[in-house]
Amino acid sequence: MQKFQETLQKILPVNGEVMEQTQERLDDLTKPLGSLGVMECIAKKIAGITNVVKPGLPKKTCILMAGDHGVVAEGVSAYPSEVTPQMVMNFISGGAAMNVLSRHVGAELLIVDMGVGSDLPDMPLLIKKKVAYGTNNMCSGPAMSREQAVEAIENGIEVAEEVILKGAGLIGIGEMGIGNTTPSTAIISLYSGKKVEEVVGRGTGVDDERLNIKINAIKRAVEINKPDIADPIDVLSKVGGYEIAGLTGGIIACGTHRVPVVIDGFISGAAAVIAVALKTEVKDYLIASHLSEEPGHRAMLDYLGLKPMLHMNMRLGEGTGAALAMDIIDASLKILNEMATFSEAGVSEKVEEE
Amino acid sequence: MQKFQETLQKILPVNGEVMEQTQERLDDLTKPLGSLGVMECIAKKIAGITNVVKPGLPKKTCILMAGDHGVVAEGVSAYPSEVTPQMVMNFISGGAAMNVLSRHVGAELLIVDMGVGSDLPDMPLLIKKKVAYGTNNMCSGPAMSREQAVEAIENGIEVAEEVILKGAGLIGIGEMGIGNTTPSTAIISLYSGKKVEEVVGRGTGVDDERLNIKINAIKRAVEINKPDIADPIDVLSKVGGYEIAGLTGGIIACGTHRVPVVIDGFISGAAAVIAVALKTEVKDYLIASHLSEEPGHRAMLDYLGLKPMLHMNMRLGEGTGAALAMDIIDASLKILNEMATFSEAGVSEKVEEE
Repeated sequence: MQKFQETLQKILPVNGEVMEQTQERLDDLTKPLGSLGVMECIAKKIAGITNVVKPGLPKKTCILMAGDHGVVAEGVSAYPSEVTPQMVMNFISGGAAMNVLSRHVGAELLIVDMGVGSDLPDMPLLIKKKVAYGTNNMCSGPAMSREQAVEAIENGIEVAEEVILKGAGLIGIGEMGIGNTTPSTAIISLYSGKKVEEVVGRGTGVDDERLNIKINAIKRAVEINKPDIADPIDVLSKVGGYEIAGLTGGIIACGTHRVPVVIDGFISGAAAVIAVALKTEVKDYLIASHLSEEPGHRAMLDYLGLKPMLHMNMRLGEGTGAALAMDIIDASLKILNEMATFSEAGVSEKVEEE
Repeated sequence: MQKFQETLQKILPVNGEVMEQTQERLDDLTKPLGSLGVMECIAKKIAGITNVVKPGLPKKTCILMAGDHGVVAEGVSAYPSEVTPQMVMNFISGGAAMNVLSRHVGAELLIVDMGVGSDLPDMPLLIKKKVAYGTNNMCSGPAMSREQAVEAIENGIEVAEEVILKGAGLIGIGEMGIGNTTPSTAIISLYSGKKVEEVVGRGTGVDDERLNIKINAIKRAVEINKPDIADPIDVLSKVGGYEIAGLTGGIIACGTHRVPVVIDGFISGAAAVIAVALKTEVKDYLIASHLSEEPGHRAMLDYLGLKPMLHMNMRLGEGTGAALAMDIIDASLKILNEMATFSEAGVSEKVEEE
């Protein structure tokens, strides 16, 4: 059995009993029952994941995986592929949005080369897990081989496991890769059963002409490759990407090690779709952050059974939405840990209703 | 002229030129144009309010105003009025949700007695601005006199002005007052033109029977008092509350002193509706935080021309949603200040489209 399959098998359901005990505590705090909505759900979910009724604040780590995409040759993006390594250098030097936001929420940020199209220099802050120099153009055949897809997943598992070993208790995932809304759209179109036109978007901001090129490219890729949705590795290898596969691996590792994982937008959502298609229980370990401007994101979150807490019209990726959500997750755990109960505060409870 | 009218007259439009310069800076940062959505809008809005192209991080203060409501005698709430002073004591001792969340975001929290139904002890952390021991039951006549409404507004102006004098650059507003969704529903029903049934909700969590009592109470209050929406002080005095009036004053002061003000949920929204009805320009100083579970909140935000960034199914009030949003506001300003530009980072810009 392959390593990723062994890892998958270790994913267990979250602890419902612990979640009930956490809800009892939440219900005893000085507020009307359920009035903190999603904050209560988050606290309860993390309790169930970690097996702790009152979990403390976790060490936060964001993992940003980068990869290039052969399909860019079709003209699907408003930016050239050279922007992927350029942005990796920007992440390393701390100037990108994700650097600002992970610093803001006090999360460590790791940059991983999963399949950038060019060689990157050795740098202490860059984790090199490159499987290939970008994917092949999925319009002319599979984006990668099945072996490469598995290698990328296992590399992603390794990255996440190392981070977890170093104490990460909450992991946010994000990505960078010019062209990567195109494979992500293919993936959600396949798993939602919706037409490409219903789930496609403008990515970094393409005009109508490029949008049509993008739609046609996705349709051709699906037609030529005939991905089998009953076999998520088949889908990933034929119409996926290395950073997507790596994030799928990262998510799986979180499920195995009982670490909550915050997904970002459209591309990390596609990685989560593959992970959930591989093993349904993964759903319980996911926390949604924002609703992306990318139209297919809603279908993706529906597939994952998640609701986004942030409605910010964002469409940047990198993990920016996940980072913002981490702060709300911290706040939710503080609510659980720091609020007074009715009896502690001497506050009257609800009037009995007949 | 009354003090609050003088204050109102000083509210000027925000600086559109500064906002344009801020947008130019945002467009030069290493991300696709507009891809940070609401974060960019927030940074730009604060630039326009404060007259600074790259505003730094503001000192944050949350103002929580408390008041009681005579209409509770009708049976509109699931909690007794004694919970209002009990919760004030809980705020003072630091055990309520709002204490946890304002600490979390690094905001100072001020508690103001605007019209709590009982005497509260002298305490360093409590600001006493009580106008009366709760409102009168609005089902039998005006909730307060016109003079009392003006006094409450002016007390609210004083509180906010003192805070601004001490350096607050971002103010969040919240409230506590058993029964206060009832007057807030009356206010939004009047200003949105929607039926009470369309904008009423369960507040702290009433059952169907109490919900009907609440609907009938609001209808009777409007019928008996005939509030004139062309005269917001008339509306406020007849179907408002002291904490609502105080928050209206606080919002007005923010407009005068060019300080952005974050509104919380349904009750602080009602205060904002009154402030905007008094002077339309106030809208430009408001930042919406979350979308409350209270069904009328959507109509309120529509009236204010605002969109909520947080969808958390919260219905607690106190300023909890405003506090959470303050962290995202800080993050938005950091984006403006700390991100690299395309030229600084050596990242290629968008491909020219024909």
